[in-house]
Order: sequence, then C-alpha cells, then structure tokens
Amino acid sequence: MDADSQQLLARLLRTQRLAALGTLRDSAPSVSMIGFSSFQDLSSVFILASRLAYHTQDILKDPRCSLMIAETDRGEREPQNLARVTLRGEATPVHEEDPQYDEARKCFLKKFPESGFLFELGDFSLYRITPKTGRFVAGVGRTFNISVEDLRRVSTLTD
Amino acid sequence: MDADSQQLLARLLRTQRLAALGTLRDSAPSVSMIGFSSFQDLSSVFILASRLAYHTQDILKDPRCSLMIAETDRGEREPQNLARVTLRGEATPVHEEDPQYDEARKCFLKKFPESGFLFELGDFSLYRITPKTGRFVAGVGRTFNISVEDLRRVSTLTD
Repeated sequence: MDADSQQLLARLLRTQRLAALGTLRDSAPSVSMIGFSSFQDLSSVFILASRLAYHTQDILKDPRCSLMIAETDRGEREPQNLARVTLRGEATPVHEEDPQYDEARKCFLKKFPESGFLFELGDFSLYRITPKTGRFVAGVGRTFNISVEDLRRVSTLTD
Repeated sequence: MDADSQQLLARLLRTQRLAALGTLRDSAPSVSMIGFSSFQDLSSVFILASRLAYHTQDILKDPRCSLMIAETDRGEREPQNLARVTLRGEATPVHEEDPQYDEARKCFLKKFPESGFLFELGDFSLYRITPKTGRFVAGVGRTFNISVEDLRRVSTLTD
C-alpha cells in the first residue's frame, strides 16, 4: 500500500465515528449502523450495543461480523472515489471483569462523551471486535487487502 | 409506523445515494459500500457492480444480502438519533434481455448521471435487490419492522 493510501486509511479510522455493522441473521447478512471506537494501535475496535438490538442478538448467536467505515458522502465527489474500509472479525463481549474493560470504556467515551449514561443501562454492553482481515478502497483502482499488521503500521502515522 | 416516521423513511430512501451492502464471504458477513437507486414504488433496488469486486463475487455465489441506508452523519447529532433502514433480500443480475433492464438502467442513471461509461465496461452489471424484510430506526425508541407493503405505502408519500 502506497504512503498516501496508508495516510488515508489512518485518517478514516481516526476521524469517522460510525460504521456499518454486518451480522448474520438466520445465516443471511444483515447490516445496521453502530458507533465505534478503537485502540490507538487499531488492534481492537469497540462497539456499545443494546441486547434489545437485532445486531446484538445476532452476534451473541454467531460472533462473526464485519465493519465498514466510509468517508462521509457530501455529494461532491463520485461515490467510487470515496475511501472506505471493510474489517472482518468476531465480536466478543467485554465484561466489567475483563482486564481491558476500563481502557475500552475510556476509549469509547473519548469518542462518544455523551454516551456515559448508556453504560448505566442494563441492556448495553461493550463488545470487542478484533479485525482479522480487511480490504481498503482508497479510490478508483486503489484497492488493497489489509492485514492486522497493516492496521498496526498505519496506526503509528500522524497527520 | 407513525406518519412522521413514514415521511422520514421515504425521504431517506429518496435522497441518499449510498448504501452499505452486506454479503456472505465464506459464510461470514462482509460489508462494502455501493451506490443504489430504486424504482419509484420501492419494489426493487438496483446496484451497478463490477465482477472484480468482492461483493459481486459474493452475491454470485450466494444472492442473500442486506442494504443499510443511513442519514449522513454531520457530527451534529448523537448517532442514535440518525435515521437508518436495513433491507434484506436477494440480489439477481439484470441482463440486457430482462424486461426491466431499460427502466432499471434509466433509474440508475437518473441518480448517477456520470456513471454511464460504467455500463460500457465489460465487468459491470446491474443487479436487482428485491427487499423481503426490513427494519427502520427513525430515532431513539422509534424502531419498526417494515414489510414490502410498508415500502410501497411510503413510496407514495410526497415531501
């Protein structure tokens, strides 16, 4: 992946706050919207999800999922030129006794400072998604398969 | 579904041009970005996809898919207040000999007037997604399962 694309991927993951979450519902795809945050090194992505939501019921049955994070469409450019990344992995609950719980909670609240009250509601829990594989489209003809190592590498880039 | 939510759903499907497309890749979810257009009555949604893209390879193996269309996040409101709709169905190629091909092509070009050249490229084809079930989140506490009939009904609403 060229340096410009790496920079673009780093910025995309750092600045966007919403992802499309793909889960399995009766073995078929279902996509919903979710807020996400990630550790600085991009090794883990966190979502805060309500047990009442279909996507949470889905991942509790089958943890395989996918997140797609796209550049905001402001209607100014052709869609195929918008950067977007697909991450694939599994979602697992992060319980309060998890050694990463405090850091994950802090990391989530940093991105969503007004979501604190959701942690107090009984039906909301943090889930960790550990990306295993990914695909990044930086623009037309600039598509890359990405690995965990690529994510780690771009996470060290500064703007 | 209340009248305000119906209006919101109609507007969302009419004004947004991009969707998150969920497909099955090795039986697991994968989400990508795609442009979409739909017939006026919302009975069919169309995407123009390249055989080189992973999502196209996925739907050619297993047509089950999901589209999620969300209100643009301008960072002004809490994410849970953004309207979004999940549609689930199957994607089938619309070949040139298909009776709906001309109408589908016209409908796609109306939304993406600069995509005409893609129809000339050998690897791009139109696919029809016929929604079977759906779920609409109009905002906090305003979540609705939606049917084909609901889609048809909201399609008749004017702004």
